[in-house]
Amino acid sequence: MSRAYNFSAGPATLPEPVLRQAQSEMLEWRDAGASIVEISHRGPEFLEVATSAERALRALLSIPDDYAVLFTQGGATTQQALIPLNFAQPGQPADYVVTGHWGKTALKQAGPYVATHVAASSEADGYRNIPARSTWQFAADAAYVHITANETIHGVEFREIPDVGDVPLVADFSSSIASEPLDIGKFGVIYAGAQKNLGPVGISVTIVRRDLLERAGQPRADIFDYRSQLKGESMLNTPPTWNWYMLGLTVQWMLDEGGVAEFAQRNARKSALLYSAIDESGGFYRNEVDPAVRSRMNVPFFLKDEALDKPFLSEAKDAGLIALKGHRVIGGMRASIYNAMPEAGVQALADFMRDFMRRHG
Amino acid sequence: MSRAYNFSAGPATLPEPVLRQAQSEMLEWRDAGASIVEISHRGPEFLEVATSAERALRALLSIPDDYAVLFTQGGATTQQALIPLNFAQPGQPADYVVTGHWGKTALKQAGPYVATHVAASSEADGYRNIPARSTWQFAADAAYVHITANETIHGVEFREIPDVGDVPLVADFSSSIASEPLDIGKFGVIYAGAQKNLGPVGISVTIVRRDLLERAGQPRADIFDYRSQLKGESMLNTPPTWNWYMLGLTVQWMLDEGGVAEFAQRNARKSALLYSAIDESGGFYRNEVDPAVRSRMNVPFFLKDEALDKPFLSEAKDAGLIALKGHRVIGGMRASIYNAMPEAGVQALADFMRDFMRRHG
Repeated sequence: MSRAYNFSAGPATLPEPVLRQAQSEMLEWRDAGASIVEISHRGPEFLEVATSAERALRALLSIPDDYAVLFTQGGATTQQALIPLNFAQPGQPADYVVTGHWGKTALKQAGPYVATHVAASSEADGYRNIPARSTWQFAADAAYVHITANETIHGVEFREIPDVGDVPLVADFSSSIASEPLDIGKFGVIYAGAQKNLGPVGISVTIVRRDLLERAGQPRADIFDYRSQLKGESMLNTPPTWNWYMLGLTVQWMLDEGGVAEFAQRNARKSALLYSAIDESGGFYRNEVDPAVRSRMNVPFFLKDEALDKPFLSEAKDAGLIALKGHRVIGGMRASIYNAMPEAGVQALADFMRDFMRRHG
Repeated sequence: MSRAYNFSAGPATLPEPVLRQAQSEMLEWRDAGASIVEISHRGPEFLEVATSAERALRALLSIPDDYAVLFTQGGATTQQALIPLNFAQPGQPADYVVTGHWGKTALKQAGPYVATHVAASSEADGYRNIPARSTWQFAADAAYVHITANETIHGVEFREIPDVGDVPLVADFSSSIASEPLDIGKFGVIYAGAQKNLGPVGISVTIVRRDLLERAGQPRADIFDYRSQLKGESMLNTPPTWNWYMLGLTVQWMLDEGGVAEFAQRNARKSALLYSAIDESGGFYRNEVDPAVRSRMNVPFFLKDEALDKPFLSEAKDAGLIALKGHRVIGGMRASIYNAMPEAGVQALADFMRDFMRRHG
């Protein structure tokens, strides 16, 4: 087939202009005599790529100067272990608000290092809502409060930043970073694997309020130390240069397209289109998430009749719509519609869903 | 310029056929409807890429069945922290043989987790030799003995596997893996960043004797646990799929070229060519490493007159020979000549060196 509309949850679709540029530079980057993936991370060529990427990301996300940006490996999951190591005393309490699968993962990774405390959870409700802020119960002397801004599997998203007082708010933004304007100053730490909204898999972004880097944390290898990573310009080990380069291209593409304000509008239109197709299907399709906290990035839905799942996926593929199978944790379908998914792709999916319903309803 | 002979120490030159294939598949991998970097790591397409890469690597390196292979992120440096976490009790002694910069790094990363014990070091000699095995002094009850098989900066390489008895031998093979046949059965753990001899930066290979995975190790996050990584098929976090794919292409290229036996011969010829150009220069060029342990992968050398360093680098670049500047730790020049560096490139460098000497000697 040719390029399809790809609804993969991550690794996810990339902007075609970014792929075309990477393709044209695969044998030689500018006049470097080699590909960007073949040259030293410490040479002037790659340093330009790295600093341009950070500059573009700071511009895109309006990152204040009192926040450091780290580009590291190991995905968001590794950050979930490094955050307690860097910001909590051994065994100190840390609050976790669990609103889906990835919040549970964060809790699990932190387990060996802090007294994890669930301040709120929607597990009993099947992660279909977000517990009201007024019901959250914090631990005394917590090192931080952790939330998952958008739950990729359960399709649940914080639509406002919760006020947690003076305790630093730490947030996994893997699947919604750069999807709309965000007041970074309200957070202590924001982290995100790049493979959803920032570019390719294989690199993560961690945005840290600099004063938090003065915390002692707990014994850890230098490679696990955010201060060392910052001092070493995210090059304590050889960084994933191609992935960093691709992130830079993707971020620049987002700036060129109009930045997060523009994407906020597109994402609102795109998600409204899909939720309408679901809600107006008379139960043929259903999404069970509290409408107030439905994700604009990941739209999970179920068909009334499970026996139609296979035909749905197969006919969708024939229509050039791929990667719609839901995560094995909850089944059903899921359309991930990050910044790089064009509105035409979402329109095509909504049209297909209506047509499929007409034929199988 | 067009593609040059690139002597970068890592990220390093890749086989041109690999780059061309990646280029041709950048917009769409086979008939997946998307690039390999845009599709799910858990889908059948990428799983085929991942398992093919492991199968090819096992064939290339003759990895015995009682060894597991992990594909992870964070470079060799991260493995240097994970190895004590997984294989040593808290504070248990571990022996380190330090024969260059990277051996020291390994020692540093392990520091918070084990009682690091330097069994032997050539630091006093400026890392120009490898201490004779008979002089090594082991700690009692050491969890393992760690060596750096090839020191990328100092250009020192173990030319035979040291016998350390029943204690597992752990080796950083980042810069010499797959450069010649190796009896993996003599090691407990072999690890390597891929960006020198195995393909692109951004992915690491860890080969672990399976019985070692039964060791308790010490408290650690699940993402830092080799057993969990193995159980999770190296997908506890979203793996760097493009890098894994590129590793697979590079390994397959090595198999197609004749495998490690063939590369051993090429590498012997390539390094002999360069060391001859140095040794026969009457002191115009010099390499200070004990000839018995000179690296076949990284050839550091100094010009008699430091003032010639700049003209050397500049004229080399004009001749299509790039990335010859030595590492800042020791200065001078360095030619890294991994498997993907063709013999013609090394011949061109040797010819250039002789010509440069004639003109500046």
